[in-house]
Amino acid sequence: MAESHRPHPRVVIIGAGFGGIMAAKALEQAPVQIEIIDRRNYHLFQPLLYQVATADLSPADIAWPIRGIFSRQKNVTVTLSGVVDVDTNERRVHCEATTVDYDYLVVASGSSHSYFGKDHWAEHAPGLKRIVDATEVRRRVLMAFERAELMSDPDEQARQLTFVIVGAGPTGVEMAGAIAELARVSLCEDFRRIRPELARIILIEGGPRVLPAFPDDLSAEAEAALERLGVEVRTGVMVEDISDFGVVANGVTCPAATVIWAAGVKVEQVGAWLDVETDRVGRVSVGPDLSLPGRPEIFVIGDAAKVPWRDGRDVPGIAPAAKQQGKYVGRRIAAQVLGKAVPPPFRYRHYGNLATIGRNAAIIDFGRFKLSGWLAWWIWGIAHIYFLIGVRRPLFVAISWFGSYLFHSKGARLITGLGNGTSPGLSNRDT
Amino acid sequence: MAESHRPHPRVVIIGAGFGGIMAAKALEQAPVQIEIIDRRNYHLFQPLLYQVATADLSPADIAWPIRGIFSRQKNVTVTLSGVVDVDTNERRVHCEATTVDYDYLVVASGSSHSYFGKDHWAEHAPGLKRIVDATEVRRRVLMAFERAELMSDPDEQARQLTFVIVGAGPTGVEMAGAIAELARVSLCEDFRRIRPELARIILIEGGPRVLPAFPDDLSAEAEAALERLGVEVRTGVMVEDISDFGVVANGVTCPAATVIWAAGVKVEQVGAWLDVETDRVGRVSVGPDLSLPGRPEIFVIGDAAKVPWRDGRDVPGIAPAAKQQGKYVGRRIAAQVLGKAVPPPFRYRHYGNLATIGRNAAIIDFGRFKLSGWLAWWIWGIAHIYFLIGVRRPLFVAISWFGSYLFHSKGARLITGLGNGTSPGLSNRDT
Repeated sequence: MAESHRPHPRVVIIGAGFGGIMAAKALEQAPVQIEIIDRRNYHLFQPLLYQVATADLSPADIAWPIRGIFSRQKNVTVTLSGVVDVDTNERRVHCEATTVDYDYLVVASGSSHSYFGKDHWAEHAPGLKRIVDATEVRRRVLMAFERAELMSDPDEQARQLTFVIVGAGPTGVEMAGAIAELARVSLCEDFRRIRPELARIILIEGGPRVLPAFPDDLSAEAEAALERLGVEVRTGVMVEDISDFGVVANGVTCPAATVIWAAGVKVEQVGAWLDVETDRVGRVSVGPDLSLPGRPEIFVIGDAAKVPWRDGRDVPGIAPAAKQQGKYVGRRIAAQVLGKAVPPPFRYRHYGNLATIGRNAAIIDFGRFKLSGWLAWWIWGIAHIYFLIGVRRPLFVAISWFGSYLFHSKGARLITGLGNGTSPGLSNRDT
Repeated sequence: MAESHRPHPRVVIIGAGFGGIMAAKALEQAPVQIEIIDRRNYHLFQPLLYQVATADLSPADIAWPIRGIFSRQKNVTVTLSGVVDVDTNERRVHCEATTVDYDYLVVASGSSHSYFGKDHWAEHAPGLKRIVDATEVRRRVLMAFERAELMSDPDEQARQLTFVIVGAGPTGVEMAGAIAELARVSLCEDFRRIRPELARIILIEGGPRVLPAFPDDLSAEAEAALERLGVEVRTGVMVEDISDFGVVANGVTCPAATVIWAAGVKVEQVGAWLDVETDRVGRVSVGPDLSLPGRPEIFVIGDAAKVPWRDGRDVPGIAPAAKQQGKYVGRRIAAQVLGKAVPPPFRYRHYGNLATIGRNAAIIDFGRFKLSGWLAWWIWGIAHIYFLIGVRRPLFVAISWFGSYLFHSKGARLITGLGNGTSPGLSNRDT
């Protein structure tokens, strides 16, 4: 792919998440060639991934082919490939399938879930980062009910109907609430031998309260909402082991057929690619302009970047932060290419924290004012759809999402046997 | 599961396809216990499976959880399990997960695709019967364009952009038309290095014409419509070999990265379960009441049954036939249980043949009158949605389907790497 003659400066973006997409869009009018490299052919709306895991939405409801997003932005080329390494001296990205030269590089490759060194837990407690994670969790949750329906041993039946979520950040809280609703509302008519509403949903958090990033009163709100849905919240509890049989926490074994990991994230490879130091979770420190110290042509954004914010804290790893950074970097590159004055250092604007517990309880913290309950839910829903304008006809998305939430649509509740990244062992046991 | 005390006669239905679903619905008011056994947890609307394979629809658009369909019909119990064997003397079905006694047995387990003894072709030329087949075909079709986009060798690029469909029955014809539209319409804006509209779509048929089951003039119509879409139709051509490299037919090798099998079906296991003779494709011959000769309590319907029709032909293996048979058997069992007069022998009503070629060309043969083009397409679409009333809110389905067809939605165009029943070999090569 390396071309000798290059009419326009070449901007290579690794990763088509919120940061990468925004960077490319911010360069729409700029005289540059943009190459987006991603291992997958779609942009994933991760904030709703848990809804696929709990069968409220289908993968196609929250993922959009990258080529479709940029079909009309002609200065964008998409390369479907994993990245092997970056040669920062030759300014070249080595992919599995090809090699790409760059004048500017934007690393927006995101994060994956971390088991804090206990990687053997992954098999028993899938995390929630990719579509295959979500469909695998969905398969496990639904299969647990199916197995329980066919069982006579009450202990084993109880184990099948026990769901443990590890980690009470937004994802863990949302998963716990959604599984509770699945069992108590969506499935309650579907079985004849078991009563799905008797399922136990246990949310384990090592810290003193749920939603640690939120103010105390909203944490309390969230905990109350979870308990109204019948979720058992256990804070200050440390997980010591996870096996096929269940979870060991604070020395006590909890038999549970389904365990979901929502506890930690890590950034992979970026440090190695760029040959720089990273922090404990693999994030790369960047300067005030989000560029790599000494490498003004390389930018790192989103979950992969460690960006100082305020009171010693870093910019949080959430979608709005990644989008702001992508937009900033895109504009900065455009200014440099056009020889205009470059924008001032990046400043993160925190619009608030948000989490949903079930269909009509959401917790929003806009700093100045706080909301919870119905109103919060609607603001959340509308904000999500607004998010997508420009990505896809919002009307369709609105119908699909609100339809699923409000009418408890059963359409997404599929166990697609072979599919969903099932490990062979599991598929033998389960399907 | 075997109970000593049984208040109502027990009707066991193997398979939740069109036949099985209709049989259970026909027994809604009858004083029976119904047990539906299926290996999968969803009912699949197979006539539209090809639309998932060509990324027009998502699996959840054409599949509905069996439990959802019967959540309010309380005399139905669903068992998610494969069937191992049937003990016709003990009147017992042995499943992988459990054992079920019956007073009446309805075998509606359908058919799978047949490679006429060349099973090693399966790996190179997937058929189209299950969701995982469709998502695997979708993955292969989309990945072929992705690979071509990254290639420099023109021969290999041409091979990636050549799609061969084997078999010109309704499925083959519909696949060929849909892939042609995918390349010429949906994808044409999405790539920068290749021109998807230059893709070659080749439809191979051993017989003298496409849609052999249709009258000659409609076959000619269909062939003309395919050629207008740029499909190369090759009738009277026999496939001799299929490999990773392509297809050998009539001694000529056609390099093609993607080959799709739409040539034959076979019925598995039913003969062995019931310990009876079958015909060449594995179908079981039944009497005028669709019961097994000498076993009035066992019925075989749908693709698994060989039912004589007219001029020496059998009832065709299409959805309407399976539905009629399911309804008939359900009513017959109800009459027997209630001690009423049993209905007269089964009579198949043929409402016509139907195939769609692309978004606005359909071929319908209603016997008395024949239709093609726009009008046919709309009748087809409305008939399909009508089909689903009672299965799921038709409005949603209508919006999703017509939206996808008319606006060429890009939502379903996902390559979900690990998922989709990818063979490890393929996933290594492709993702």
